[in-house]
Amino acid sequence: MEIKIPSLKDVEQARQRINPYIHVTPVLSSRSINEITGSEIFFKCENFQKVGAFKFRGATNAVFSLSDEEAALGVATHSSGNHAAALALAARLRGIKSYIVMPETSPKIKKLAVAGYGAEITYCKPTLESREETLKKVVERTNAAFIHPFNDIRVICGQGSASMELLEVVNDLDYIIAPVGGGGMICGTATVVYEKYPQIKVIAAEPENADDAYRSFKSGKLFPSVKPNTIADGLLTSLSPLTFGIIRKKVSDILTTSESQIVEAMRMIWERMKIIIEPSSAVAFAIVLGNREMFENKRLGIMLTGGNVDIDNLPF
Amino acid sequence: MEIKIPSLKDVEQARQRINPYIHVTPVLSSRSINEITGSEIFFKCENFQKVGAFKFRGATNAVFSLSDEEAALGVATHSSGNHAAALALAARLRGIKSYIVMPETSPKIKKLAVAGYGAEITYCKPTLESREETLKKVVERTNAAFIHPFNDIRVICGQGSASMELLEVVNDLDYIIAPVGGGGMICGTATVVYEKYPQIKVIAAEPENADDAYRSFKSGKLFPSVKPNTIADGLLTSLSPLTFGIIRKKVSDILTTSESQIVEAMRMIWERMKIIIEPSSAVAFAIVLGNREMFENKRLGIMLTGGNVDIDNLPF
Repeated sequence: MEIKIPSLKDVEQARQRINPYIHVTPVLSSRSINEITGSEIFFKCENFQKVGAFKFRGATNAVFSLSDEEAALGVATHSSGNHAAALALAARLRGIKSYIVMPETSPKIKKLAVAGYGAEITYCKPTLESREETLKKVVERTNAAFIHPFNDIRVICGQGSASMELLEVVNDLDYIIAPVGGGGMICGTATVVYEKYPQIKVIAAEPENADDAYRSFKSGKLFPSVKPNTIADGLLTSLSPLTFGIIRKKVSDILTTSESQIVEAMRMIWERMKIIIEPSSAVAFAIVLGNREMFENKRLGIMLTGGNVDIDNLPF
Repeated sequence: MEIKIPSLKDVEQARQRINPYIHVTPVLSSRSINEITGSEIFFKCENFQKVGAFKFRGATNAVFSLSDEEAALGVATHSSGNHAAALALAARLRGIKSYIVMPETSPKIKKLAVAGYGAEITYCKPTLESREETLKKVVERTNAAFIHPFNDIRVICGQGSASMELLEVVNDLDYIIAPVGGGGMICGTATVVYEKYPQIKVIAAEPENADDAYRSFKSGKLFPSVKPNTIADGLLTSLSPLTFGIIRKKVSDILTTSESQIVEAMRMIWERMKIIIEPSSAVAFAIVLGNREMFENKRLGIMLTGGNVDIDNLPF
């Protein structure tokens, strides 16, 4: 059975739908970083997005795609990260309830953020099994609509609006590089580029220590993530059949990078650009630092995906 | 004897002079910070200026104000901080030599930055006496023009261009708040506001632990800084007769803040706005956090002066 995958038109509709609610984030460049890499880089700064991450785009598109009848029952998800906050805020903006299942071990600051957006939080054990079971009960009780963090065309299309904005600021790029975890951002990006800017190559960037997408892409067979252990904690999840299908068709290549290169890339962006990005955000730039010849004299778009770091627990 | 002080016209000329070389930095707001303070704040982000600090404006105005004959001999200063890097880059842009006296104890990263801009560095002992003596010898040898970091009308007028840009983006402010060290930034700001926007009050923000400007302002008599000891290391210097004269005439008030409030303010800007500012930059916002009633429901401009922090040695 062929899986339905999203088209450029779906992303365009998503963008129109979410435009009243999102920030159009800035595109920044740094002369000193360009000197270091020998390339010309345009950073799309989703670390400045609401809730501090691009996830707000996808969650908002999903929430505002619901019919009034569906929306009246609220939305639900399980997440310890940016998707939880994104869905909670998107629900608040539509004036509906959100039910978030979070591991009881989640950082206090994340619990407070999600609660601050008015979500009803149900705590669970910190295992995928417990998360899914607890969510199932919540959904049975409430009939809320489950919004998956990436295995959802509405979510993927929301994320794609970020690269659409970038490419309206600068479109004569050689490459767009975005990190890959579950695949929401890279699939949204690839959907836009494949149809509208076919001359641009889309590269997915992944930590070596969580390289399920790399292994799946190279072998043509969907591998789950096995004991991923990376500082890029937004990229621990595995692809779904939907995101794997899109990646196989529309992504040019997947490159991996080491933990130390990710930290070096993160530090360089902090020091040179004076902006705060989370480790997952640094993975795409780490790929550039690690493959200088490939990207020399090229024009690159890089998706900086989020800025939510635990300042008391930095890798430097 | 009356000391000559700069006028709005001097700042306007400075701005025209430096405009080809500086970044017009963004003005940012944060909904969550506005909710916390109950005010509406517009941050002028000089942490994104070249060399990472507003000091580049003043140094550039001084360097490009020199006649060709003066410029041919180069420029000199003593500094361990942002003024050194600013002067070195400004000189490079004019194609002239710069001679920088730096304490041998300066952080390696600052030495490398200044050297990277092509300056000739002379190291000295880490005392004001040694700095001044060493600089005197350098100037005698080279006949380079000494560019003081703040006791110089050209420098003050260059710094003033930042608030001029801010006030063209948003002019219906109740207050502008800027930190005060030697007084270059606050005097440039006050010069612009006093003549062009007299309805706006200019507030200087100072660490309690380096409160020479506060004591001078309140007593009407110029006090030097006595053993200042603050995390806001850009604000250790004392006012000069020139900057004190401008402040007495054109600044509405000086407020002080504690070390812990400075760190809280810095952290809040990092976490909420996802931008990197140095501790000296946080002092103006710390004043707002510490005087909530005074600033509630007001529209505030805040000068974020720089973003050069030692990432290995953060206060949190």
